[in-house]
Amino acid sequence: MTVTHRWVAGIHAVESALAGGAGQVRRVLADRERKDARLQRLLQHAQSDGIAVERVPERVLAERVPGVRHQGVCAEVQGSGVLDEASLRERLAALGRPPFVLVLDGVQDPHNLGACLRSAEAAGADAVVVPRDRAARITPVVERTAAGAAALIPVAAVTNLARALEDLKAAGCWIVGAAGDAALSIHDADLTGGLALVLGGEEKGLRSRTRDVCDLLVSIPMAGRTESLNVSVAAGVCLFEALRQRRPEPSSS
Amino acid sequence: MTVTHRWVAGIHAVESALAGGAGQVRRVLADRERKDARLQRLLQHAQSDGIAVERVPERVLAERVPGVRHQGVCAEVQGSGVLDEASLRERLAALGRPPFVLVLDGVQDPHNLGACLRSAEAAGADAVVVPRDRAARITPVVERTAAGAAALIPVAAVTNLARALEDLKAAGCWIVGAAGDAALSIHDADLTGGLALVLGGEEKGLRSRTRDVCDLLVSIPMAGRTESLNVSVAAGVCLFEALRQRRPEPSSS
Repeated sequence: MTVTHRWVAGIHAVESALAGGAGQVRRVLADRERKDARLQRLLQHAQSDGIAVERVPERVLAERVPGVRHQGVCAEVQGSGVLDEASLRERLAALGRPPFVLVLDGVQDPHNLGACLRSAEAAGADAVVVPRDRAARITPVVERTAAGAAALIPVAAVTNLARALEDLKAAGCWIVGAAGDAALSIHDADLTGGLALVLGGEEKGLRSRTRDVCDLLVSIPMAGRTESLNVSVAAGVCLFEALRQRRPEPSSS
Repeated sequence: MTVTHRWVAGIHAVESALAGGAGQVRRVLADRERKDARLQRLLQHAQSDGIAVERVPERVLAERVPGVRHQGVCAEVQGSGVLDEASLRERLAALGRPPFVLVLDGVQDPHNLGACLRSAEAAGADAVVVPRDRAARITPVVERTAAGAAALIPVAAVTNLARALEDLKAAGCWIVGAAGDAALSIHDADLTGGLALVLGGEEKGLRSRTRDVCDLLVSIPMAGRTESLNVSVAAGVCLFEALRQRRPEPSSS
């Protein structure tokens, strides 16, 4: 088994890594121009734990985690960064509110998985959940396609997806599955509360066991002759429809 | 220069190919179980032009154009299938209404281009416009990622994108550019009329010349620390927001 290293970025993600939530921190890079108190406290925390802190020009950070608002700090972390069921439950319970989660039922292509992580983080989701044995792993291709987002959003790999969905129900989530044959339009479903959006894999969509656990099945209204969307596009449309409904601003309709 | 062949699917697309709008038809495959009048007329048209018609089991069609509603017919067509400025203008004028077009200002990755074609066709767009010298070509990877949609939606490659946008304005399109720094949310822009949605390339977004031609710049509201989305995801979110606004049904907001 190879030892995995990865970069996490941003004050919250690095704090979380230092607190032990995201694996063992090997070193911390910080923008040498940044002096704000929260960053200073974080760096003192790292140094008091015996972790090397390097002050570097901002462009070094930008190269490590391209496309991500790193807030002046990133850390190299040992471990795959993938949570198990228990850690996921803990993380979500710590939110103190019903979570907003993206569930991918068997997305195999690393570009699709990376794009989904990026969209989920950008839409404000709290975590992404995948089945342990039927999903692409967090490879460098996934991380690159995710453009740094893999370092910002927790990914949980679960042994039993149906059971994980029941856990999410218990945590206050409405389980909403995307299915091309669903009669209800996603625009007419209420996506404003605790929410687990469930997308199927590239070839077969949602498995029947997964469908059975859903509270609601929705489809994206389409107007052409193409039967389905790329899974990362479908996930993006669903995630940003949820975000649209969640935002306080008035929106044209 | 190599001669290109490709498959177009569906009664309308094959009719259009036979009418000369999409290149020279080499042969037509039709579902041997289908006997409806419109298909029969189409096959007679092909035969009277001396084009070989093969009646085949449905699965042969399904394999040729996977994931596409082929309506019992597809055709092998010679040519790249890419329109020039004049053909684009003709096609759009023939609609008899202001068009709905996706414009990609320099999308380089074939997977992204393919996913964009698929989303555009699924959202009911009339065409996709790309700059001739700054875009991925319609390769087999593009066609496969498009899951057949490349055979259903016209793609135009134009020499001068700014001029093409002026043409679209003249054809009744509102030119709406997606830019991460735009203050206006896409949900608050009116996308219900003639519309050209303009997305930038993977690295640099919209070029300044392209921005200058836009009537309006909009952004997709985001809630995380990721700075931008995968371009095919961003295109999908914009296209399906336009479709949401265009649909007659009431939708929760």
